[in-house]
Amino acid sequence: MEVMSAENNSCCLNNGDVVEKMKRFGRLTCRKIWKVGKEDKRRVIHSLKVGISLSLVSLLYLMEPLFKGIGENAIWAVMTVVVVLEFTTGATLYKGLNRGLGTLLAGLLAFLIERIANESDHIFHAAFIGTAVFLVGAVTTYMRFFSHIKKNYDYGVVIFLLTFNLITVSSYRVDSVLKIAHERFYTIAIGCGICLLMSLFIFPIWSGEDLHLSTVAKFDGLAKSIEVCINEYFSDGNINQQEEKVKKYSMEMEDPIYKGYKDVLDSKSSDETLALYASWEPRYLRSCSWQQYVKLGTVLRHFGYTIVALHGCLQTEIKTPQSVRVLFKDPCNRLAREVTKTLKELSDSIRNRRKYCSEIPSNHVHEALQDLIDALKSQPRLFLSTNSNTNILLALATLATRQKSGKDFLVSLPSVNNDDPARLGLSHVLKEGDKKILRPTLSKNGITSLEFLEALPFAAFASLLVEIVARLDLVIEQVVELGRVAQFKEYSHDDVVINVSCDNNPRVESEFPSSHTAAD
Amino acid sequence: MEVMSAENNSCCLNNGDVVEKMKRFGRLTCRKIWKVGKEDKRRVIHSLKVGISLSLVSLLYLMEPLFKGIGENAIWAVMTVVVVLEFTTGATLYKGLNRGLGTLLAGLLAFLIERIANESDHIFHAAFIGTAVFLVGAVTTYMRFFSHIKKNYDYGVVIFLLTFNLITVSSYRVDSVLKIAHERFYTIAIGCGICLLMSLFIFPIWSGEDLHLSTVAKFDGLAKSIEVCINEYFSDGNINQQEEKVKKYSMEMEDPIYKGYKDVLDSKSSDETLALYASWEPRYLRSCSWQQYVKLGTVLRHFGYTIVALHGCLQTEIKTPQSVRVLFKDPCNRLAREVTKTLKELSDSIRNRRKYCSEIPSNHVHEALQDLIDALKSQPRLFLSTNSNTNILLALATLATRQKSGKDFLVSLPSVNNDDPARLGLSHVLKEGDKKILRPTLSKNGITSLEFLEALPFAAFASLLVEIVARLDLVIEQVVELGRVAQFKEYSHDDVVINVSCDNNPRVESEFPSSHTAAD
Repeated sequence: MEVMSAENNSCCLNNGDVVEKMKRFGRLTCRKIWKVGKEDKRRVIHSLKVGISLSLVSLLYLMEPLFKGIGENAIWAVMTVVVVLEFTTGATLYKGLNRGLGTLLAGLLAFLIERIANESDHIFHAAFIGTAVFLVGAVTTYMRFFSHIKKNYDYGVVIFLLTFNLITVSSYRVDSVLKIAHERFYTIAIGCGICLLMSLFIFPIWSGEDLHLSTVAKFDGLAKSIEVCINEYFSDGNINQQEEKVKKYSMEMEDPIYKGYKDVLDSKSSDETLALYASWEPRYLRSCSWQQYVKLGTVLRHFGYTIVALHGCLQTEIKTPQSVRVLFKDPCNRLAREVTKTLKELSDSIRNRRKYCSEIPSNHVHEALQDLIDALKSQPRLFLSTNSNTNILLALATLATRQKSGKDFLVSLPSVNNDDPARLGLSHVLKEGDKKILRPTLSKNGITSLEFLEALPFAAFASLLVEIVARLDLVIEQVVELGRVAQFKEYSHDDVVINVSCDNNPRVESEFPSSHTAAD
Repeated sequence: MEVMSAENNSCCLNNGDVVEKMKRFGRLTCRKIWKVGKEDKRRVIHSLKVGISLSLVSLLYLMEPLFKGIGENAIWAVMTVVVVLEFTTGATLYKGLNRGLGTLLAGLLAFLIERIANESDHIFHAAFIGTAVFLVGAVTTYMRFFSHIKKNYDYGVVIFLLTFNLITVSSYRVDSVLKIAHERFYTIAIGCGICLLMSLFIFPIWSGEDLHLSTVAKFDGLAKSIEVCINEYFSDGNINQQEEKVKKYSMEMEDPIYKGYKDVLDSKSSDETLALYASWEPRYLRSCSWQQYVKLGTVLRHFGYTIVALHGCLQTEIKTPQSVRVLFKDPCNRLAREVTKTLKELSDSIRNRRKYCSEIPSNHVHEALQDLIDALKSQPRLFLSTNSNTNILLALATLATRQKSGKDFLVSLPSVNNDDPARLGLSHVLKEGDKKILRPTLSKNGITSLEFLEALPFAAFASLLVEIVARLDLVIEQVVELGRVAQFKEYSHDDVVINVSCDNNPRVESEFPSSHTAAD
């Protein structure tokens, strides 16, 4: 009895479990559906557009007077809408025009083949059609491997092959095949017309605009990456904490640095697809600015690779002591701040479709770079001996100080500011002579020593920062070129005044929101 | 008269020009056609397969007895072949199965809708169909935005929408629509059958095999990049020559280093497409090894980013003097050689579908890494002063030497071999005392001095080499995992004997050519 009730209980529990699971699944699905729409509201609009277009085109078939005019072939209009109406206007135009062109050419070729085939008897006719189908099929398929055709006309070629086969093969049994083909072309044109109307005039979604916004987002992501990267490198947290953080990030892939640049790294194919579709959109045809966006994307990817390497410096096993990092914290911070500021200015200029004035901000970056280089130069020379195991200078220095003033002293010198401290700095010191140089002090911590090996990671970090500036120049070059090609508005002086203030968030809120420019 | 003859001449010339141009265009086109086929002979095979399939399926329509059995709808088989038969088996299966599933589900839903609609009067029937078309159109289109559906079933969803609309809309006018749908399904199945037959049994082209080979090629490309990179960095050519080379490369994009890694960097989308198709291929379904190839691809991309940064070191404006680079040439060269050797071994093990034995070669790499680290450690400590503008040690050293022996001398010391030269090296020197330390020599070149700034690029280079080794371990991890998941043959000891010989081209020619494994 007890056993049974227990079984009953577990059964009830199982039922409860199943209901609970179903409920949870339902909730998850609802949340997922909501999320997909919330991420990009245009998805909802596009879905409604497809529904409306299909209903509209169905009317051709469903309404008596329209059906009488067009007839059975109205179904081809429905088919066209399903296949051609895509998310963005560019994609719809690409597919629609390719479909139109493919159908037209296939019709012409089929007409030619039929004319030739009709001259012959029945069996030869069949053989002729079979051969034509084989040859056109093989040649057309081979053509799809040409990269230019593959890229721009792949869909058109498939439709060409499809239509050609439909017409040629049908023509063997049906005499009025050209009439049918003519009618179908007519209904396909209606379908294409509805698609173009829907995608060009009702809430149009432009691939070119997507490309534009994704480029802006890339700049923001890269700026964010550099900012976080520098902050983490010079943060005071101890090394173990940082390592744990890095481990955590690598498990969950949520590292904000990685998040900032990951979209840039893998942007090639999405950029190229968007640019392909944009190339069919009327507003981009004239300027060919989509090509420039692709070029800018390539330069940004290479910029991104350097940030990946910079990120790698944070994760390296050999750490440069915090005390050494602190020495260069200010110039590095300043340089990084200037670079991120420039990136944000570039993103703002593209967002607002204004030409970018490359001179003023770029100079700030180069000033900051010069600062960093000066800071690096101000360090004493390195001595590498060719018989690679001597510590001579170290020994010399120590000896010299010992001979003069005992065991544990270090000396300080007036600072030597000079463009070439390696040469002039030395002579300056020597001119000042013995009296000053060896004045003893008691500041034990005045000089930090570290192994060459320990200096490596910092050297790599600094070197990559310098590299980033070099690559930033290439990016600026492409942005200026973009402004020229895409005929952005002239640079106005007001922007500088706002942008030049060097706070942490120098982003200027866009005066011309992108939706405005998208609709014009 | 003269004018006329001159005109005639120019006219003839123009005609000649046109003919010449036409000829040249013809030659170019022929060469292009030849090249596309030569690059990948499977393209020719695929084109012939499509031609043959289309001819076969046309027979359904062209041959009297077959046509009597199947009728008008035979044309749908032709359509299916055009749309479904793709280059690789996986792609054909993906499209064929998606098409089949989409058609089936659409038919069922259409049947359900028709049952409900038939209960009502004519006008309500039309309204009901219109509403159904709108709703199904909108919902289906919205579903295409879910990433999982987009990735795996996008084509199926489009076919579902297409078939549903065709059947539902047609059913309003044609009573026997379900009979037609049934017949069409039948012919579509024939079309799909021919496609599957062609792609599974006649010269099959496997996406999984493409993914496999492209992975192998990536390893070879990366190895090549590192090899050339190191050779160029330590080549004796003067800096100007190198710069010219770099400029030439950047113009023509033919830099062998760039060529080696560029395919790796942008491999994400092609990898994912190949993996998607491979996931539909029967031989990969069981092991899910395609997922592991994608993971390996991700790790290889990150490995590639480090090589990009290494490549950047060659192009940097601040150059480390050749004399300093030479100091570290041997350990760097050895490390790079070991890394490329490991990469080639990895590529061989994947090519031959053998498990990779990670221990032996990896140790060689770590030995070489230790060598480099030792070489770096053997250099004297660096001194960085916190009041950052003093050249104190330099001055001290110079003074000490001046005081003892005049203006232009440098001293050499017996080498100090020790694990911690920073600490022990110093005491060793001090023990030896004054007598040895300040023994003057005349070898001016005994010690190379350089600015910290000049040391940066080399430090970055060395640091990136160390980083490469770290990333190589991650790559090895994934290759071992691949061997496990894809059930590669056990590692045999013979391979090591061949591979371990450390020449420049340690590639073992594959005993099991890939065509063999592809056909089994």
